Amino acid sequence: MLVYGGGSIKKNGIYDKVCSLLKDFTVYELPGIEPNPKIDSVRKGVALCKEHQIDMVLSVGGGSCIDASKNIACGAFYDGDPWDLVIGHSKVTKVLPIAVVLTIAATGSEMDNAAVISNPETNEKLELNAPNLYPTLSICDPTYLFTLPPKQTAAGTVDIMSHVMEQYFQPNNEAFLTDRFSESVLKTCIKYGPIALKTPDDYEARSNLMWASSIALNHLLTVGKGGAWSCHPMEHELSAYYDITHGVGLAIVTPAWMRYVLNDKTLDRFVMFARNVWAVEEPDPRKAALEGIDRTAAFFRELGMPATLKEVGIGPEHFEVMAEEAVRVSGIAKRSFCLLNRDDIVSIFNSCLE
Amino acid sequence: MLVYGGGSIKKNGIYDKVCSLLKDFTVYELPGIEPNPKIDSVRKGVALCKEHQIDMVLSVGGGSCIDASKNIACGAFYDGDPWDLVIGHSKVTKVLPIAVVLTIAATGSEMDNAAVISNPETNEKLELNAPNLYPTLSICDPTYLFTLPPKQTAAGTVDIMSHVMEQYFQPNNEAFLTDRFSESVLKTCIKYGPIALKTPDDYEARSNLMWASSIALNHLLTVGKGGAWSCHPMEHELSAYYDITHGVGLAIVTPAWMRYVLNDKTLDRFVMFARNVWAVEEPDPRKAALEGIDRTAAFFRELGMPATLKEVGIGPEHFEVMAEEAVRVSGIAKRSFCLLNRDDIVSIFNSCLE
Repeated sequence: MLVYGGGSIKKNGIYDKVCSLLKDFTVYELPGIEPNPKIDSVRKGVALCKEHQIDMVLSVGGGSCIDASKNIACGAFYDGDPWDLVIGHSKVTKVLPIAVVLTIAATGSEMDNAAVISNPETNEKLELNAPNLYPTLSICDPTYLFTLPPKQTAAGTVDIMSHVMEQYFQPNNEAFLTDRFSESVLKTCIKYGPIALKTPDDYEARSNLMWASSIALNHLLTVGKGGAWSCHPMEHELSAYYDITHGVGLAIVTPAWMRYVLNDKTLDRFVMFARNVWAVEEPDPRKAALEGIDRTAAFFRELGMPATLKEVGIGPEHFEVMAEEAVRVSGIAKRSFCLLNRDDIVSIFNSCLE
Repeated sequence: MLVYGGGSIKKNGIYDKVCSLLKDFTVYELPGIEPNPKIDSVRKGVALCKEHQIDMVLSVGGGSCIDASKNIACGAFYDGDPWDLVIGHSKVTKVLPIAVVLTIAATGSEMDNAAVISNPETNEKLELNAPNLYPTLSICDPTYLFTLPPKQTAAGTVDIMSHVMEQYFQPNNEAFLTDRFSESVLKTCIKYGPIALKTPDDYEARSNLMWASSIALNHLLTVGKGGAWSCHPMEHELSAYYDITHGVGLAIVTPAWMRYVLNDKTLDRFVMFARNVWAVEEPDPRKAALEGIDRTAAFFRELGMPATLKEVGIGPEHFEVMAEEAVRVSGIAKRSFCLLNRDDIVSIFNSCLE
């Protein structure tokens, strides 16, 4: 079964290439996977798998497409609604082989064992993960990024950086090598994000970003680290309620989160971040930390990202229920870099308003 | 079959622990694997495997022990002398599962698919590699390094750094992320090598070094790079002829190689190395490059490594035949950072004399 999204692969030739290579196989298609992939698309895919005894899921696209494919691949062997697997990972047993042709550098789903699926009926956007949800193979050809629109190049770069920062900002300091690796990936995004925007067919930029996306979430950057993520739980609520682009939500939330959690206890790591990632030379630690945060926010703006919720049409109506939900479904209040409760999260959302 | 070395695991308790965990299995032992493991030890192991229908090789030790185990594991299925496999990799077919309990951070053999085996009859020290020679599992417990003697801690650290530098100094410049990763591993060795020498039971130091050893040679640092190694082919001749410790040979050869190949064409990368690894601030590029090389040599001396061949009792007698052999068995004259012929290598050996 060939799974893909909105049809960009028909414009850039990848669809034709894949079909011609598969001409000796029986291929069923599942087009139309949407950003923030919905459980209904997964249900359609699972029904097709069961009807036609599909033996492999080929996902040609980005994170949304791959994530839907992962849920389909395990749903094909599950006797019930595939949403059950998202809310109960232990029900995942057998999985169809998943092959990927990657068309955006962003989520890292091409080299990890997780998927994020949205359920608009319940306003939930949750993570599915299981040890056997790694793709069997992923074809990561940087030339497939040459036609990627600027907005997606930018949002993808923010997504990569956020994955790294979620692991970098965790409550431990012994993983020297891992921290240096994380800084390396961030510096790669900072160097090549703007180049890819300006020169979309720059192979060096696209290949470094593509590798950065896989590295950011293939567990290399968790070695010796430990703790829950901070910005993703908040952003998942934004895109669950308002269906905004994940990278856009992260670009808005991340600097606000940084400013909120900067305190005497977290200062050292923010100084490390400022000096090693942004080469900040300011001697005063607190000023240096703030400069690192400002540089992060300025970089997201330079990539063309919105900086406020107002710019994406989000008001404060649901902040409290979203904050409650973020606390309920994640470790943000129990195991994150700086523990945040419902009220903290509402404050952060408020500081993003305009 | 339990494969181990000179008996240090009997002193530090690892042998007793392994034996007590394996009390319900039939275990045959192959002790006495020497540094620069010899083909005769491999032959003994293969004979034991064939005689007792061994179904797994458990290697408790460092690189020598693991490398011998790899040759044994494929030799067990080969109908002939296991040295044939070292000189003809395509003859490797089936391989026994290899399990590792690592006791030194150095060669990276615990997470790669290569082995280096010595044949004293022919003065050859050659690499065996095959896609299925990765260990099935490796237990890398940093506390097992707490009793490692200083000399081995130091030689291991040099070995890790050399593996990284062999990949960093290659004739291409597009792999930004990989180069930053390489610098991260080098900085890890520079930070924690001296700490591990001073405080052998420092968990943070040992764990970072142990992870650095695996990372240095598990192919992560080759992504986007390409080319042959330079210092290892030269050092392999030294230890093939004189059986010196691999890391010691590398500590002597590497700075001499750097000084020999520094020229207008290679300058930029040496400057990058000096600035990013050693934080050299000297503005003049050539002076900065030389300072980076000097810092490397000084660091090896700080670790207690010999700096000259004289200190390890090696004279110029065999330089020419060794240089010829290095050219014959490696890509040093065809695909390395700075192509070197027989005479170049003799010059480098000469510059190491005293």
